[in-house]
Amino acid sequence: MPDSSLNALIEALRRLPGVGVKTASRMAFHLLQHDREGAQLLAQALQQASTRMRHCSLCHTFTEGEVCATCLDPQRDASKLCIVETPADQAALERTAAYRGRYFVLMGKLSPLDGIGPRDIGLAKLFERATDGAVQEVILATNFTAEGEATAHVIGEALKQRGLKVTRLARGVPAGSELEYVDLGTIAHALVDRR
Amino acid sequence: MPDSSLNALIEALRRLPGVGVKTASRMAFHLLQHDREGAQLLAQALQQASTRMRHCSLCHTFTEGEVCATCLDPQRDASKLCIVETPADQAALERTAAYRGRYFVLMGKLSPLDGIGPRDIGLAKLFERATDGAVQEVILATNFTAEGEATAHVIGEALKQRGLKVTRLARGVPAGSELEYVDLGTIAHALVDRR
Repeated sequence: MPDSSLNALIEALRRLPGVGVKTASRMAFHLLQHDREGAQLLAQALQQASTRMRHCSLCHTFTEGEVCATCLDPQRDASKLCIVETPADQAALERTAAYRGRYFVLMGKLSPLDGIGPRDIGLAKLFERATDGAVQEVILATNFTAEGEATAHVIGEALKQRGLKVTRLARGVPAGSELEYVDLGTIAHALVDRR
Repeated sequence: MPDSSLNALIEALRRLPGVGVKTASRMAFHLLQHDREGAQLLAQALQQASTRMRHCSLCHTFTEGEVCATCLDPQRDASKLCIVETPADQAALERTAAYRGRYFVLMGKLSPLDGIGPRDIGLAKLFERATDGAVQEVILATNFTAEGEATAHVIGEALKQRGLKVTRLARGVPAGSELEYVDLGTIAHALVDRR
């Protein structure tokens, strides 16, 4: 019968999103029976990532340094700032190779029902960044969901009041879907057609 | 953009069964953004389980000691030996509370197509255990799949030649399904009806 360290492993695996007790058991048995090297690798990777990763002081994405590689890149156009919800969304935009400006990663979205307000997604920091003098255009690339649209609206209105040009990804992206799962062509098209 | 320790974490999570690159990214971002404590816990659990867990010298299941708790339990009937494929199957049988004998866990099944032969599932050890003098009945509780049936057949024939009484879980278990996912009532019924 399961011993304590096996139970502890199954319980710990259940903290992963979308993993219940059956899946956690399968994962634990698989690692112990067929891939102990993988288990050790995963342990180290978790340890290192959770101690080393922090937020970029400029754009808020995950990074190991004080400032992330994208913000440090002098090749990128500092006059454009693209606002996304998550690093995964940022990665999707990067894969289109259709955007060479900078980013601000909200690490979430406004969601009053879940108690997530402007402070939780670092809007004060965003406004500071957007009004640094270099930024001339802010591109709202939050998801086309209810919360994403609301977040885009709130940010857009606030930045327009500060005299900035604000655009939104074109509605080429199907409504209700999440950026991370949209095909690259559609995202590229939406970038070109931004309004 | 993703830094090295984030990429390493995503790659390591992909070694979990059923986890692709999208799911691994979601898991990594979730842990880093919302549950660093969970990440640390999981790292420790993986480390401990993968170094501490080994196979019981009597029944082959996972255990931290030399011999597992079930084999050490003097309350259990040493005259009955139930053969299962995995610790998950053993756990399903235990949950029915309909069996108080001992177990032998194959940690796999005969599968010639995958190159898994008698040596890989410890059949020599099983025959040694089954002929220790105490065992009078061997209950074959491998899954009712093609490989499970074949495994049960091979083991059953070999043990009958050695003069042991061999029974098989009753066909109350729906054909083609795996023990781990069967409801407890069906498993209990199949135990009572063994032939």
